[in-house]
Amino acid sequence: MKASYRIAATLLAVFALHPGRASAEDVRWRDAASLEIEGRGWAKTAGPYDRLPDSAKSKVNSTAWNLSKETSGVCIRFVTDAAVVSVRWSVTSGSLAMPHMAATGVSGVDLYARSAGGSWRFVGNGRPHKQDGNLGRFEFPEGAKPGRECLLYLPAYNGTKSLEIGVPASAHLEVPKPRPEALRKPIVVYGTSIVQGGCASRPGMVWTAILGRMLDRPVVNLGFSGSGSMEPPIGEPLAEIDAAAYVIDCIWNMSEDPNVYKDHVSNLVHTIRKARPDAPIIFVGQSLMRPEAHPTKSTIGQEAAVRALQEEGVKGLVAVPGGNLIGDDGEGTVDGVHLTDVGMLRQARALLPIVREAVSGLIE
Amino acid sequence: MKASYRIAATLLAVFALHPGRASAEDVRWRDAASLEIEGRGWAKTAGPYDRLPDSAKSKVNSTAWNLSKETSGVCIRFVTDAAVVSVRWSVTSGSLAMPHMAATGVSGVDLYARSAGGSWRFVGNGRPHKQDGNLGRFEFPEGAKPGRECLLYLPAYNGTKSLEIGVPASAHLEVPKPRPEALRKPIVVYGTSIVQGGCASRPGMVWTAILGRMLDRPVVNLGFSGSGSMEPPIGEPLAEIDAAAYVIDCIWNMSEDPNVYKDHVSNLVHTIRKARPDAPIIFVGQSLMRPEAHPTKSTIGQEAAVRALQEEGVKGLVAVPGGNLIGDDGEGTVDGVHLTDVGMLRQARALLPIVREAVSGLIE
Repeated sequence: MKASYRIAATLLAVFALHPGRASAEDVRWRDAASLEIEGRGWAKTAGPYDRLPDSAKSKVNSTAWNLSKETSGVCIRFVTDAAVVSVRWSVTSGSLAMPHMAATGVSGVDLYARSAGGSWRFVGNGRPHKQDGNLGRFEFPEGAKPGRECLLYLPAYNGTKSLEIGVPASAHLEVPKPRPEALRKPIVVYGTSIVQGGCASRPGMVWTAILGRMLDRPVVNLGFSGSGSMEPPIGEPLAEIDAAAYVIDCIWNMSEDPNVYKDHVSNLVHTIRKARPDAPIIFVGQSLMRPEAHPTKSTIGQEAAVRALQEEGVKGLVAVPGGNLIGDDGEGTVDGVHLTDVGMLRQARALLPIVREAVSGLIE
Repeated sequence: MKASYRIAATLLAVFALHPGRASAEDVRWRDAASLEIEGRGWAKTAGPYDRLPDSAKSKVNSTAWNLSKETSGVCIRFVTDAAVVSVRWSVTSGSLAMPHMAATGVSGVDLYARSAGGSWRFVGNGRPHKQDGNLGRFEFPEGAKPGRECLLYLPAYNGTKSLEIGVPASAHLEVPKPRPEALRKPIVVYGTSIVQGGCASRPGMVWTAILGRMLDRPVVNLGFSGSGSMEPPIGEPLAEIDAAAYVIDCIWNMSEDPNVYKDHVSNLVHTIRKARPDAPIIFVGQSLMRPEAHPTKSTIGQEAAVRALQEEGVKGLVAVPGGNLIGDDGEGTVDGVHLTDVGMLRQARALLPIVREAVSGLIE
């Protein structure tokens, strides 16, 4: 058998092109919303995969509100003993890709499974070809296994209109056991297009998703392209979430003006602190592909604002310098700003020890 | 000023969206083909950026022939003292992207410049929005500099119909000095869709391009999606190039049958050896995201074929195991096969010491 890349590199691709074969297996479909939805800050939202509740509509800018219908960071956790999992999904926008971000990242789904060693391993990506009725088929290389825990990431830059998970009629598909008590509170990440996932190759490679797998914890992605600007009263919805930690990564969407940081950082911190006296709040410096340009004026402005609050006596604040986030070789971005998978992996790794320390209660 | 990601994250993007501003600068355009074209194995081809000469048409399969019109690995080397470089380009196909590869990789252009330290640094990527008349504008963060050496990569999965480079009328744009004598012979890489560049975020992140920058040498990319299957008489055109080394990375497009490797590897090696008695030939094992699956049957088959030739007394052959090419975390691909920038960077780094040793004459 000749393996042709362009036409059918893997069985997955073959079945994606010939959905008939998948249905020939007598797949039993289940609405994904009836399994466990992770990566949401609120249990009640207008749509099952929305990232903000209706009550937040008046508290965020209108672009952020619209982008909250895109499903970045939302994922389905489930358990199955099937050797093959199918996914059928439709998206809300026919714009499946962006010029600098592949359709797999914008509108695709991404399956991970827990390995025998306990870590999450990539299984495969579902390629979107159309707005409605995309089909992905994922075969586990090790075959069937009882109680296999899976994590399916939803599209990072498109809304998920419908999502079904299918397994052979003879297999089980179930809601998983809850995560261990100590790992149940989510990390809430608020920020820009980079937080939302621009420009990962697939949703599982958004840095918030990578960090979530590394820490084995839910992460709530509140990245809003062009609109993560920390303007009040954004702290109010954030404070409603009982977070293990907050990570604020907004600089690229903000001004260079130090007064803006003084005002916005202070407002955000005080609003969260009122509701969450102990949750660590981590402010991320500006990622930039030119190491010699660090720290940027914006990073300096944000750091000064955080320092002022610490001097006021506010505990549990961290300011992360931007300089080491995406490496010093200039190869972590697609356009000088938005991260490729290289930049995404580097940013997740750079933040991992800081967030791990914060959620362990080791931050003063 | 608010920096909005989605609309205009960088000046580059602003000007790409408003070409009028670029032309307001009185840009002087020059056909890129009049500068130095690198990454070609033949000086005379039907189109200036074609990857195979007409004489090869009968020696490769028809898909490979068609794909030789796509410009992966072809790049323009030039020197300028301009602070800003503009690029205007058209592509041969209106299919600007693939579902799992962004338009920036498929149809974009990618500018690098030599840094003060001597290494190549990413400057920016030109986003394709249409088939004809795309415009990119690249501003060097350090401003104007006399004699700055630049390298502009052409689209990796599309043909380049036309390409012009523009600088302000007051600036120089020139053919560069030749590369140092010892670094002039190219590395010739022959293989599959992954060699061609699937699925880098931009042309400069194809592993052959990364390797070329690391070694600071021309690389001829003869990757043909789905069609790098080592079938005779492909060795004949390869042997026409006076290569510093040949890298053969075909396994994903080939059978698992050991006899196919025995036959094809032997034929390829003997054909090249007749014309190029000393050029090292490096056979790359199969990259695979599951470390436990290494070595694959195909890798074993290829290694046996190489060993048999070594036992015959053929010198200068290397078989690279596939296992360490793209890491062991499963995160180097978009779909289980094709490399993201993470996989591309890892494969380039894994091959770097082997190719460096080979071109230094240290391979027996």
